[in-house]
Amino acid sequence: MRSLGTEKTTIGWAARDPSGALSPYTYTLRNTGPEDVVIKVTYCGICHSDLHLIKNHQGISHYPMVPGHEVVGEVVEVGSDVRKFRVGDCVGVGLLVGCCGICRPCKSEMEQYCNQVIWSYNHVYTDGKPTQGGFARSMIVDQKFAVKIPDGMAPEQAAPLLCAGVTAYSPLSHLGLKKSGLRGGILGLGGVGHMGVKIAKAMGHHVTVISSSDRKREEAMDHLGADDYLISSDSTRMQKAADSLDYIIDTVPVFHPLELYLSLLKLDGKLILLGIINTPLQFANPMVMLGRKSITGSFIGSMKETEEVLEFCKEKGVTSMIEMVKMDYVNTAFERLEKNDVRYRFVVDVAGSKLDQ
Amino acid sequence: MRSLGTEKTTIGWAARDPSGALSPYTYTLRNTGPEDVVIKVTYCGICHSDLHLIKNHQGISHYPMVPGHEVVGEVVEVGSDVRKFRVGDCVGVGLLVGCCGICRPCKSEMEQYCNQVIWSYNHVYTDGKPTQGGFARSMIVDQKFAVKIPDGMAPEQAAPLLCAGVTAYSPLSHLGLKKSGLRGGILGLGGVGHMGVKIAKAMGHHVTVISSSDRKREEAMDHLGADDYLISSDSTRMQKAADSLDYIIDTVPVFHPLELYLSLLKLDGKLILLGIINTPLQFANPMVMLGRKSITGSFIGSMKETEEVLEFCKEKGVTSMIEMVKMDYVNTAFERLEKNDVRYRFVVDVAGSKLDQ
Repeated sequence: MRSLGTEKTTIGWAARDPSGALSPYTYTLRNTGPEDVVIKVTYCGICHSDLHLIKNHQGISHYPMVPGHEVVGEVVEVGSDVRKFRVGDCVGVGLLVGCCGICRPCKSEMEQYCNQVIWSYNHVYTDGKPTQGGFARSMIVDQKFAVKIPDGMAPEQAAPLLCAGVTAYSPLSHLGLKKSGLRGGILGLGGVGHMGVKIAKAMGHHVTVISSSDRKREEAMDHLGADDYLISSDSTRMQKAADSLDYIIDTVPVFHPLELYLSLLKLDGKLILLGIINTPLQFANPMVMLGRKSITGSFIGSMKETEEVLEFCKEKGVTSMIEMVKMDYVNTAFERLEKNDVRYRFVVDVAGSKLDQ
Repeated sequence: MRSLGTEKTTIGWAARDPSGALSPYTYTLRNTGPEDVVIKVTYCGICHSDLHLIKNHQGISHYPMVPGHEVVGEVVEVGSDVRKFRVGDCVGVGLLVGCCGICRPCKSEMEQYCNQVIWSYNHVYTDGKPTQGGFARSMIVDQKFAVKIPDGMAPEQAAPLLCAGVTAYSPLSHLGLKKSGLRGGILGLGGVGHMGVKIAKAMGHHVTVISSSDRKREEAMDHLGADDYLISSDSTRMQKAADSLDYIIDTVPVFHPLELYLSLLKLDGKLILLGIINTPLQFANPMVMLGRKSITGSFIGSMKETEEVLEFCKEKGVTSMIEMVKMDYVNTAFERLEKNDVRYRFVVDVAGSKLDQ
């Protein structure tokens, strides 16, 4: 083990401006402390929010920015107080790398809702250094924000679980919807949606994919294992499906009227919003009141839930559907992601890529 | 006991057209069956929805219409299969007088959500006769839809509990918010809102009344016992109160932006909509997702919850604030209600009124 407290240089692929084009970037990692682990990144998933951030769609981007928050790697060094991991462990890092530790959400293992949370990139760490993500040779992370990848799970398979997977899993677990026999709907078949289908199926639910077109029917039914497929403009079938679902996982990240989907919910049904939308959403309040329905939502998941979803997927044999690429393909991958041309998650083979060219 | 199966004539006060003016109206009650009780009405509360119906604000009104669905009366006759009540019992009837009995809500004691529910007036009973409400000498009701007024509770006090009271109580009970120590907000201080303050206080909650003006501060704090009073336009105090409430009971029956109130909710907080609004409502979805908040709502309460709220109020000494009037004042009462000029519920002393002039 090298001595802690020494600055390390690493190389990643960074966006430099709102064009979002990524290219090699050398930078120093923050000093490691006694609670930190140094990770050699092996795989990193590409999430839709990475796209928004590299292109500054929300006006909050700082450059140079090394994106990536579905990070899988190998522990190559541990701080003196690290008890959770040993050198050689395969670990995952998601969107969180810091929190205050003393607020109510932090004390209740819901640190993703801490007001002082620190994101794995495009943020500032406690030492004042910018955080940088997983499209890089290495990362340094407080042990609290790393999770063990279960033995026997393929590490590249684990990557999408660290954000997309836990995003779908967390509300089902939190809202008491993990029990078998429920009927769920999945709206939007992207990274989160495809994990939603697989996780809900593994929970023993009857799963209906709801889509605006027939385009993804085969995919949903034959490849992901959905039980039914509804086209939202097919009013006859939508009407027939009224009052039939216990919940809908709604991953659509743009404005859409909610009434159509509220009508599919049973009494006490829950519409779970998982896609951040910048335009206000609308709903007719009698549709909520007269069926005691809820419009709710959640945001990624806690560290505990991240561990849970990994164990759950291992136990149930749930795998993500990924397309593996090298780092020199990452800009093309982002272009394709922007056109929803991916089934269903790009994962960059970081360790197998040349990062310096 | 007179023989059942004979049609009875009664007199009530009915609206004849969308002017909503009520005047004496003689009609026959439906035939009584073995499960029915005949009730001599003593008191009947006036609810805001009565106003909408007598004036046909929703385009669903049928005339002549005898309104009133917060009905308290004395059982004067029971059918052969009635075991729940005896002649002389003081009972209450709310908005429901029938349901299918076989659907999931009916089987789960949530009959208020049955698709084939029958309302106490402006509806059609199973025999094809129009239902007529409690501004009348008598009513005939299936025993399932009558509740016993607890011994020791003043009957006129019970009237507002049958709709306004159970409307506020039901979501708190259903959503697991009956436990003491919570912090609740009440938005809108009308019939339901004032019961909300009193019931939430009796549950041991810290209660904040949220209002658009300072006008009801003294009322809320000194008479209803609220702990705090927030003016929604006071941005300094609203900001200070951010993230502080476990729930808000929102009784406002007209369009209002929800963001202001969502911001007051803690992580996992619930915005409970209890006022039917015909204009779509809007919200910013990050405010829901990033605090795992819920927008939900409910509609009156079940028969079981109606019994519960009566027992709860008796046990905790919760009383409604009412203004008692005679039937010849009912048209003025409706005019005043339209201007929110009532503290907080009109109750008509039906038995003490001359109904035929």
